[in-house]
Amino acid sequence: MRDSRTNSAPDPPPTFGADLHLELRGPGLRAGLTDALREAVRTGRLVPGCRLPASRSLAADLGVSRNTVVESYAELIAEGWLTARQGSGTRVATRVEPHRAAPDAPRTRPDEHLPGYGLLTGVPDLANFPRTQWLTAARRALTAGPHSALGYGDARGRMELRTALADYLTRARGVYAGPERIVICSGFHHGLALMAQALRVRRVGAVAVEAYGFDLHRDLLTNAGLHTPPLYVDEHGARIDDLARLRGVGAVLLTPAHQFPTGVALSPERRAAAVDWARATGGLILEDDYDGEFRYDRQPVGALQGLDPQRVVYFGSASKSLAPGVRLGWMVLPEELIPEIVTAKGHGDYMTSALEQLTLAEFIASGAYDRHVRSMRLRYRRRREQLVAVLRQRAPGIRVAGIAAGLQTVLDLPRGTESSVVQAAARQGLAIRGLTQFRYEVADCGWQLPERDALVVNYAAPSDSAWAGALDALCRVMPS
Amino acid sequence: MRDSRTNSAPDPPPTFGADLHLELRGPGLRAGLTDALREAVRTGRLVPGCRLPASRSLAADLGVSRNTVVESYAELIAEGWLTARQGSGTRVATRVEPHRAAPDAPRTRPDEHLPGYGLLTGVPDLANFPRTQWLTAARRALTAGPHSALGYGDARGRMELRTALADYLTRARGVYAGPERIVICSGFHHGLALMAQALRVRRVGAVAVEAYGFDLHRDLLTNAGLHTPPLYVDEHGARIDDLARLRGVGAVLLTPAHQFPTGVALSPERRAAAVDWARATGGLILEDDYDGEFRYDRQPVGALQGLDPQRVVYFGSASKSLAPGVRLGWMVLPEELIPEIVTAKGHGDYMTSALEQLTLAEFIASGAYDRHVRSMRLRYRRRREQLVAVLRQRAPGIRVAGIAAGLQTVLDLPRGTESSVVQAAARQGLAIRGLTQFRYEVADCGWQLPERDALVVNYAAPSDSAWAGALDALCRVMPS
Repeated sequence: MRDSRTNSAPDPPPTFGADLHLELRGPGLRAGLTDALREAVRTGRLVPGCRLPASRSLAADLGVSRNTVVESYAELIAEGWLTARQGSGTRVATRVEPHRAAPDAPRTRPDEHLPGYGLLTGVPDLANFPRTQWLTAARRALTAGPHSALGYGDARGRMELRTALADYLTRARGVYAGPERIVICSGFHHGLALMAQALRVRRVGAVAVEAYGFDLHRDLLTNAGLHTPPLYVDEHGARIDDLARLRGVGAVLLTPAHQFPTGVALSPERRAAAVDWARATGGLILEDDYDGEFRYDRQPVGALQGLDPQRVVYFGSASKSLAPGVRLGWMVLPEELIPEIVTAKGHGDYMTSALEQLTLAEFIASGAYDRHVRSMRLRYRRRREQLVAVLRQRAPGIRVAGIAAGLQTVLDLPRGTESSVVQAAARQGLAIRGLTQFRYEVADCGWQLPERDALVVNYAAPSDSAWAGALDALCRVMPS
Repeated sequence: MRDSRTNSAPDPPPTFGADLHLELRGPGLRAGLTDALREAVRTGRLVPGCRLPASRSLAADLGVSRNTVVESYAELIAEGWLTARQGSGTRVATRVEPHRAAPDAPRTRPDEHLPGYGLLTGVPDLANFPRTQWLTAARRALTAGPHSALGYGDARGRMELRTALADYLTRARGVYAGPERIVICSGFHHGLALMAQALRVRRVGAVAVEAYGFDLHRDLLTNAGLHTPPLYVDEHGARIDDLARLRGVGAVLLTPAHQFPTGVALSPERRAAAVDWARATGGLILEDDYDGEFRYDRQPVGALQGLDPQRVVYFGSASKSLAPGVRLGWMVLPEELIPEIVTAKGHGDYMTSALEQLTLAEFIASGAYDRHVRSMRLRYRRRREQLVAVLRQRAPGIRVAGIAAGLQTVLDLPRGTESSVVQAAARQGLAIRGLTQFRYEVADCGWQLPERDALVVNYAAPSDSAWAGALDALCRVMPS
């Protein structure tokens, strides 16, 4: 940049444009010039304070009309890159700080080089997502949906989906659900966040949780300002009697159909005790029915919510039955809570895709959801049976714990072997977690979970083609 | 229900099943019996405490195997509907409270009978949503997407979309954006909520906002525990100098390209002053670029973010360019903020549909997004010109305020007429808001907004076929 250049210089060196590499690309000359100048300022080739050539000169230099340059300067002045003062011409704004290529931002969650086989909890068999049927539903939904469905929607979600879910949940999960009790959300995480917000508004101070569970959900409650005292978990599920000894607990988060991750069912007595507690104290039961559709030895046990729809909030989602990439969940709420959840949502649907809601509504109504769940139930059941059979043969000392249900099971290991097995698995390219990672204990609660070495195995996660390899790798790391 | 019935009764009245309307539907006899019994308890036809017939009797009565009844009872015991005690047979659990058809929940947001024509702000022309092209993109995205895309994703969103957006935003909005600076969210509301969370963690106490604006966004900040002192708004946009007089302000929320709703552009001097303020105080500028693509009299003014990507957070979304029903937005962040936003998101993508992200990535990469924006720009520009022309003829006293941009404009009315015009419009079946609804004033801020009677007209909202009628209705309610 030549600072000697002034408005009055009649004959600018003809290399100015070339010097600056003002490459004017694309169809719009003016836009091209503006982009090139902006880029020159941004990268520091035009330094703060330096004067730009007079429009007439630059125009001649570049072989464009003067007007093009004038408009380009005006645009960059409007954007704040340049300034124009009477008598001092056009200059690069002094506050512009050139920044060159930014260094790579720290990757906060690096794309791990995942081992060859993944048995981590949380995802179903993604390779068997019903892509074709889902697209068919999307096409039908988008073709049939009214224009208004594309706008901001009702905070409770699309009526089409709430109607389809009411029918499905009543039929398949014994949920007491009319569309007017259902609020759609973007998965369980979103639903629990809304509930936490509503509970805080109600001045609830604590939500009891299971002593084995998913840390993300506890963290979510804690971040919302709620305490999370744990309930002891044994072979009958969460010990509901513990609730009576806890102070300020306004709700309890349970996984009654299939305790996560220990895999037991909440016993009938404890189901009853939970409802009794809620009625006696005015508390709420938050029922996380994350994989209730998947039971292999009998009909699925109906949702706890059916026992008392006024005291139980039912949470379900498409994350296990379809895929987490479909970000849809649902809450079935006591009537009195609905306005509070609607308030927590901001009185409109600002979070959950209307198109995806319409697609799932169509997917359920057409019967494709039932067919998919049935097909996956068979598939997962077969995998669980294979797991049990193969372990019996190759690692007869290992006990498969929990009921025949869901996507994951617990394999009990000899005392003191958990962490070495997990490490051996990692070396074999097998991603798996120990049960210890899911323990949640606090001091002074009056009890201690027994020591338990075990693996949590999500047999649903591998694709069909990866399953045999994963199972073999698992057997190879089992202590003999 | 006959309470006299006992285990020992050998010959139950054959009408038992019929009495109870135990209609056994569907292929599964046991499931049908279970459902029917559950429904009978639920609706109070089997009252708490009453004893059920012996399994043998009921089996004979219904013509099913005894095992079917035994299993059905067991299931309902597991669910907590029934109890079984040695010697006293199977009874309806005493805690079961029958609930009949629930009354309709209060409709917290009634489906208003919308007037014939809507000119309310917030939505683009939904009738022109590119349904076919969107479906094409969805098909390509779902066909090509890896299985892992269906799982829980990176908190920053799908790389495919961040890459497509980085290119688009650099090109179309002058944003300094690499994919590593972009975090995907479910629209502006979600992005602002995440930012509010991050600001609270930073112990920021206040976010300055424009004295004309959208109450929902202020409420969101307030609910997150942030104060929202207003900045005076005049024909040059928000008065940035006000910031120096405010205490504890760690960020300012601005609509620089097209002030919402007054429709002016932030002047070059104030753009510069905002960046100066942010640099001097370490504050952040939150740039809500809600309709920056739509400028009709010139090239769109580039985003403020380009001036200092380390101090400006850029927010964009698909809500105006496509439709709010596509729940996707994006933040372009200073590097240092990315870990804080990732933390606010819970270190994973638990909110935003991966399928929709992949679809938009494909939609942008294929050029369909550019084509759609161009086509809508022409359409909205034509509508704005028609609005100006028709008003000049039929209501020559009315001034169309603000720049030729965006989806809405402000029509200045004679003093004291705003509310009567809004009411007259409602009577004509025309939904429209007065400017007063968007004013935000607080006591003791040292200034007052001048009285201003005006309408905020979203000329983008009507469908093509409704536009002429809406325009005519608007002219008819204008004060002469």
